Formats: sequence, structure tokens, C-alpha cells
Amino acid sequence: MKLGMIGLGKMGYNLALNLLKHNHEVVAYDMDHRSIEKAAEKGALPAPSLEELVSSLSTPRIIWIMVPAGRALHSVIDTLSPLLDEGDIIIDGGNSHYKDSLSLADQLNKQGVYFFDIGTSGGIEGAGHGGCFMIGGDETVFRSIEPIFKDIAVDKGYLYAGKNGSGHFLKMVHNGIEYGMMQAIAEGFEILDKSPFNFDYEEVARVWSNGSVIRGWLMELTESAFSKDAKLNNIRGVMNSSGEGKWTVETALDLQANAPIIAMSLFMRYRSLDTDTFHGKVVAALRNEFGGHAVESTE
Amino acid sequence: MKLGMIGLGKMGYNLALNLLKHNHEVVAYDMDHRSIEKAAEKGALPAPSLEELVSSLSTPRIIWIMVPAGRALHSVIDTLSPLLDEGDIIIDGGNSHYKDSLSLADQLNKQGVYFFDIGTSGGIEGAGHGGCFMIGGDETVFRSIEPIFKDIAVDKGYLYAGKNGSGHFLKMVHNGIEYGMMQAIAEGFEILDKSPFNFDYEEVARVWSNGSVIRGWLMELTESAFSKDAKLNNIRGVMNSSGEGKWTVETALDLQANAPIIAMSLFMRYRSLDTDTFHGKVVAALRNEFGGHAVESTE
Repeated sequence: MKLGMIGLGKMGYNLALNLLKHNHEVVAYDMDHRSIEKAAEKGALPAPSLEELVSSLSTPRIIWIMVPAGRALHSVIDTLSPLLDEGDIIIDGGNSHYKDSLSLADQLNKQGVYFFDIGTSGGIEGAGHGGCFMIGGDETVFRSIEPIFKDIAVDKGYLYAGKNGSGHFLKMVHNGIEYGMMQAIAEGFEILDKSPFNFDYEEVARVWSNGSVIRGWLMELTESAFSKDAKLNNIRGVMNSSGEGKWTVETALDLQANAPIIAMSLFMRYRSLDTDTFHGKVVAALRNEFGGHAVESTE
Repeated sequence: MKLGMIGLGKMGYNLALNLLKHNHEVVAYDMDHRSIEKAAEKGALPAPSLEELVSSLSTPRIIWIMVPAGRALHSVIDTLSPLLDEGDIIIDGGNSHYKDSLSLADQLNKQGVYFFDIGTSGGIEGAGHGGCFMIGGDETVFRSIEPIFKDIAVDKGYLYAGKNGSGHFLKMVHNGIEYGMMQAIAEGFEILDKSPFNFDYEEVARVWSNGSVIRGWLMELTESAFSKDAKLNNIRGVMNSSGEGKWTVETALDLQANAPIIAMSLFMRYRSLDTDTFHGKVVAALRNEFGGHAVESTE
């Protein structure tokens, strides 16, 4: 099929290559024109502007947007939507909040444009060599673009999840689970590191990746990380987050769903951002108040 | 090689079959003589007593014990150890506490018997068709029995972890991680279940098993569970535990290692055992005390 790809960052560029590899025609646009040239060298048709991207596609157009959620996405859609015709298809493959996807779908549906919110997992490697796609939107229209997903997903790696919002909702919860799984694995190695034994962490992650109950891609990535830096001496334990864990916890609160592990994993990430904490000061001060326990001075 | 297998429950029996399949000779014993007969039908040499098991092996004997940790294990070792000769090898493949393994190793080493604490993962299927083994004990002696593990483990699925205790320590922490990973997955589906969308959980677990970051054996088992019972309507959410999660948390406390996710997963299991809770009564009573908020009567 022929489709437009807007946003040629790590994910979008690799998705474009994946599409080209499967003999789809890709019209490529990015704000950074060097990225367009890079994609063109690999066989994409360069579009120097959104207008030219739209005009080089025939209706019904399929346009995949792979830009950061929020402002960047809205800016692209605001420019794009007046140029579109009824029946055109917009795909948001980024990490948007599912409520944002619901309102974008409403807005685009009103002008007869179909919107798909697609959660993408599997990292850069997945984008380039077979990813995992969770797809929300109109089912009939989805069936018309399904061949794309058959090609770029790993075997059994895409799901029509339901109406708009469901794709990004699934991706959000996927990332919440990921926070919990990563923290569980990490705490296990924390205990090993404080143990009286002298474990080789790369070897431990290797054996846990082969035949154990906890085997999976995250454990394989753990093995890979320890293979590069046996005790991770070169990495500070600062755990940043890009927002989907927070959304998962906020959503759990809204739905009154119990998710203490996912919430705690998020809080542990926040804890890791601080070298000292105000709650720590308060507890230390209180122990001093009632029991005369020594406090450590900041000096 | 020729070795004795004591304990022919689900794990021991399948390990024996796995060994036989790889042309090892297995002398099989169980308290239940029907289990011995069952193993004999598959090619094991039946030993009607521990004495006969010992006498049918030539020195240095290799004896694999696969019985419940604690009392059953100690009872077997108490009967067995007077019958052994210097240089014999005892393997505890069960889920013993690593401190128990340390003291058994001490006791057996004093009479010149080598002890291996081996954590086994991968479930019944793993035992029968290729498991994951974490091995603690003397390294030189281990190299002499290593061919066994090459045969019965999946590829790359065994690790000489270090001195005695390290095998069962690794298995304990593995299970602690497992608690956290399972709870994270489960909370994700809890959020999906309370969401405004209508997800097919088997399909969700299927797509998350293929190409996603959180893919792994536990997600495949999740898919399998939902394939049998789409909403798990036939299963109550009672989460029993067999002790290794508790040991992991106790060990984390002893080592002052941070493991809030693993601890919370354990507490959520305990919570699931109660239909009502005393802490719930206390909070409800206090809300009533200070704010006059209604309480629900037990009647």
C-alpha cells in the first residue's frame, strides 16, 4: 500500500524502513529535512512539506503520524486536517493519552476522517524488524489497512483492540505493567547485590532467561545490560519516566482499580530522582523530637 | 551417568523421565510404592527402600532428593547419611531455605559427603522437557556431574552459581521476582477490567506475548489461562503462596535491601486470603468516630 509517514525519529524512521522492506510505498516527512533525505536514500518518497505529502497520496489517504504526543501531535493534525478529504485515514502511532485520542477521533470523525490510535511496543528493534501494535478505531476501515500490520508486526503481533481509545489505553497499561516488572526484576538484583554470595549478574540473568518462569524479553535485556557493565558501575540509579506509568496510576485511581505494585514502581522512580528527600528530613526530625535520636546534619 | 532419585512427585517423576530420555540410569525411590512402579514402567530401576537405593549405586554415589523442603527433606537425609561413603554427592533439588542448605552442607561435608543446593525453575514442563537449574556447591565436584545438567536443562539453562546456599538463594529471589511480575501483570488486567473498553483478555495477552516489551513466559501463561476461561469467572481471586516470597522479603529485611514491590505483592496475597479485614474494620470505625461516616454492619 502507499502511505505517508510523518515524523522520522528513531521509531518513525525504523517503521518507514520496515514498511519499505515489505514493498509498501512511503511518502516521508519530518520537520528536520536531513531526516527526510536519510529516508529517501532508503527508498522513501521525500515530501518537503505536509502539503506535498498530502498531495502525493491519492484518496483515501493513509497517513501515519509518529511524533511526540501532545503539542507536536496536535500541531501536525491542525495543519493536516484542512488538507484532508472525507474517508482519509490518520494513524497516531505515538504514546498519546487515550483521552486525547478520544477527542482527536471525535474532531476528525466530524469531518469524515478516520482516526486510529495505535500503541506500538517492542522498541526501536521492533519498529524496524517486527513490532507489536495495539489498534483502536473503526473495525471495517481497519480491515482495509490490516495488510500493513500483517507485514510490519511480528507474527501474531497486532491486535484490533476495539473502538477509538482502546489502542492507546492498552499501550498505557502495557507500560504500567512494564514499570512493575522492571522494578520486580531490579529489586531481585538489589537483594543479590546485598547478599553474602558473589553472583555474576550477567550469568544469573542468562540462566533466568532460559527455562525459568520469569524468562522474557526484559530478562534478556537485563543480561545484555550486565554483559556491558558487570555491576552497572557506570550507571547512576536514576529512573526517569516518560509519563505512561503516571497515566496508568491516574487511570487506576479514576477507575478505583487496585494497582499498588504499579503505583509503588512509579513512586520508586520519583524517589530515585532525589538525592535527599523532604520526607526523610521529617522522619529524622520526628525521631529526634520524641526519642532524642541523632540526626545527620546537611553540612 | 547413574543416579538415585528420591521423591517421585510431579517434579521428581518428570525429572526422572527427563534423565532416562537422555540415557542416564535412574534408581527411583518414593514413600509411595505405586510411584516407584510408575517410574519403573518408564525404565527406572525400582528401589523399594533408601537402603536398597544406596546399595544399588556405586561410589561416588549421586543422589538427587526431590521432596518437600523442611521436615521431609531432613527425614530423608537423616536416614540416608549414615549409609553414605566419603565422596558421595547429595543434591537437594527442592525449594529449601538457603540457610537450611548452608547447615545441611556443613553437616554432610563433615562426613565427607558433598552437598548441592539446586534451585529448579520452569515448572513441571521444565522438569520433564528442559528446566532451569541454579546450582550451589563445590565447583570441582560440580564439573564431574555437569553432564547431567547439560542434558536435562534447556540450552543455557543451568548455572553454577557459587558456594553452597547460592543455588537456593537464587531460586528464592527468582520466586520473589515472580511474585512482583505476576502482580504487575494482574494489576494491568484489573485496570482493563474496570475500563470503559471491552477487551478480549486472551487476545490482549496474545498480542503482548508477541513483540511487546513485556513478552515472556508469564504472559504466555496468561494467554493460556484466558483461553480456558475468558473472564476467569470460575476462579476466585485467592492468591496462595508457598513461602519463597515470604523468605525473599525476610531476606531483604535482613540485608536492608529495598524491595517494596516484592513485599507489596506478598501482602496483596495475604489480603486475598481474607474476605473481610481487621484493618478495614479499624479504618471504618475511625472514619465513623471523627466524621460520623456510616459504617457497614456485619449483619
